[in-house]
Amino acid sequence: MTSPTASPATAPRTLARCRALVRPALYRAVRRLHPWHGEIAAFSLGWDGVDGGDVPGAQGKGVRQALAVLGAEAVGAEARSAVPGAVAVELVHTFSLLHDDIMDGDETRRRRATAWKAYGTGPAVLAGDALFAQAVRTLAEAPGGHCVPAVRLLAGTLTDLVHGQADDLLFESRPWTGPDAVQPHEYRLMAEHKTGALLGCAAGLGALLGGAGRTEADALATAGRHFGVAFQAADDVLGIWGDPAVTGKPVHGDLGRGKKTYPVLAALAAGGPAATELGALLRGGPLDEGAVRRAAGLVEEAGGRAAATSEAHRHLERARACLESVPLAPAALEEMLTLLPYVVERTV
Amino acid sequence: MTSPTASPATAPRTLARCRALVRPALYRAVRRLHPWHGEIAAFSLGWDGVDGGDVPGAQGKGVRQALAVLGAEAVGAEARSAVPGAVAVELVHTFSLLHDDIMDGDETRRRRATAWKAYGTGPAVLAGDALFAQAVRTLAEAPGGHCVPAVRLLAGTLTDLVHGQADDLLFESRPWTGPDAVQPHEYRLMAEHKTGALLGCAAGLGALLGGAGRTEADALATAGRHFGVAFQAADDVLGIWGDPAVTGKPVHGDLGRGKKTYPVLAALAAGGPAATELGALLRGGPLDEGAVRRAAGLVEEAGGRAAATSEAHRHLERARACLESVPLAPAALEEMLTLLPYVVERTV
Repeated sequence: MTSPTASPATAPRTLARCRALVRPALYRAVRRLHPWHGEIAAFSLGWDGVDGGDVPGAQGKGVRQALAVLGAEAVGAEARSAVPGAVAVELVHTFSLLHDDIMDGDETRRRRATAWKAYGTGPAVLAGDALFAQAVRTLAEAPGGHCVPAVRLLAGTLTDLVHGQADDLLFESRPWTGPDAVQPHEYRLMAEHKTGALLGCAAGLGALLGGAGRTEADALATAGRHFGVAFQAADDVLGIWGDPAVTGKPVHGDLGRGKKTYPVLAALAAGGPAATELGALLRGGPLDEGAVRRAAGLVEEAGGRAAATSEAHRHLERARACLESVPLAPAALEEMLTLLPYVVERTV
Repeated sequence: MTSPTASPATAPRTLARCRALVRPALYRAVRRLHPWHGEIAAFSLGWDGVDGGDVPGAQGKGVRQALAVLGAEAVGAEARSAVPGAVAVELVHTFSLLHDDIMDGDETRRRRATAWKAYGTGPAVLAGDALFAQAVRTLAEAPGGHCVPAVRLLAGTLTDLVHGQADDLLFESRPWTGPDAVQPHEYRLMAEHKTGALLGCAAGLGALLGGAGRTEADALATAGRHFGVAFQAADDVLGIWGDPAVTGKPVHGDLGRGKKTYPVLAALAAGGPAATELGALLRGGPLDEGAVRRAAGLVEEAGGRAAATSEAHRHLERARACLESVPLAPAALEEMLTLLPYVVERTV
């Protein structure tokens, strides 16, 4: 069922294998929605163009569904036992992108219009709600008698998710410097909630639906959370120094938008002349192109980029330690240990 | 535990008793939210003024929580076993008001600003999501071993709810007359989803958490759905002919806003000279004050008001028949049979 040897080429193969396994059930879940919501969901998932048109967009990597499948395999269960969990986390992920884009006012995602730009705010809110409901329903109706702990894990995750998004939004109105400035540890907690919780939930759900005991499921869920924090730190590096040809976003984009991300917060917290100059620059308000370039240089000089990279590596290590703390099926463990750094490393 | 005799005065007493029973747990559920969402929820529930200020608003009647409590008592269980279900349906109701007000562009509710007007669209979307998540969590963590069917009922209800809201929004862009006009039976199905599903869920959750078998729980849930359709028809009558001093809304408000409601759709479907004149008037676009008055008269003349009132009574009767089709505890049954017409009759 799983490849006996793990090589660098295994991660894309793992993602493709899991996507192929989950896709029919995900498709059915989307087709069960109100046709209007099914269309918006298919657009958001990159399956269709706007208004159901035949112009698919870029699709996500499917890391969450892969973690769910590997979670089940890691506890010795059949991959297919994880499918309701994999579908639920992909639906929740799509829901959160739909609603977050509204809150953040983002007009493009994966090189095309966001759902609220294409369909309007009201329809995008409602389609998000429909995906949310369908996620809970998919899991609640999962066969096999493990649905109580699974639904509890998902429900707690949903709470974490909105908690993280709230903190992220509130960070926007906090100052860059001074006693009320956002500290790196606050940012880490936000990232754990906003990004880590659902990745941890994915792995944990796979384990629970595969019949795992509490210890294994907890270890997998905690590993997924650390992976999420690592991923967020790496993504933050990408948001400043990523290649626009790869990211589809402007260079230094997060700095230009005044977004409080880990590299910047770590640079400001580090102190020293570069941090002081950076703080003064950011406090001055919207930055023009030259100021954005200068700010990016100062973040790097103050050690913010290195801090974010090391944050990513540290949490990847913790994820690995969690996975190695419990007995897991070797092939699935190896695939997971290949997948996690692959997803993080391609960005830092 | 319940009053031995049911008199017209029993309905307000039932509502007050159930509210008092559920309030501490509902309060705890709201306090478990992110403080920002807790504040928006307390505002939406009418507990606090905007920004947590000391100016409470009008609170809902609490019909959903009462149905949950009576659902448990009706199957011979203690009232308190229903509390997680009662909390869940009140949280879902608050979530749906928050999001629906955004989609409908409504700026006031219960004589004050809606949450999105007071806090902004993004925060209102997110606070709604938080309430939704907390509802699922409350039910998933309910003690007593009945949480699987309860979570399944809630999940199916959430799907119905967004389905009904989608249809209601889509009705707006359909014509008043001709082959694509919204038919009364389509409106009834929308109302069953949008209003009936959650009221049915409330009664059904109470029964399930009280340990009821499938037959009793289904009968209670179906009764609640019929009650919801009756309530919606009565509310539609109120939306046109209600006293502004009581409703807090302008007289003929729904007609002025061009809202497709049961009395109007029934009037148009009835045919005859009044229906023809009404159709021509409505097709003409936004109505001035005189035209709105004329339209209200034509709806009445074409039998739309009488049709809505009889729709309300018919579904109340069906609710009663459902409740009487299974053996239920007499005191709770009597309270329910007093509560349902009380809530509907005060409006038609």
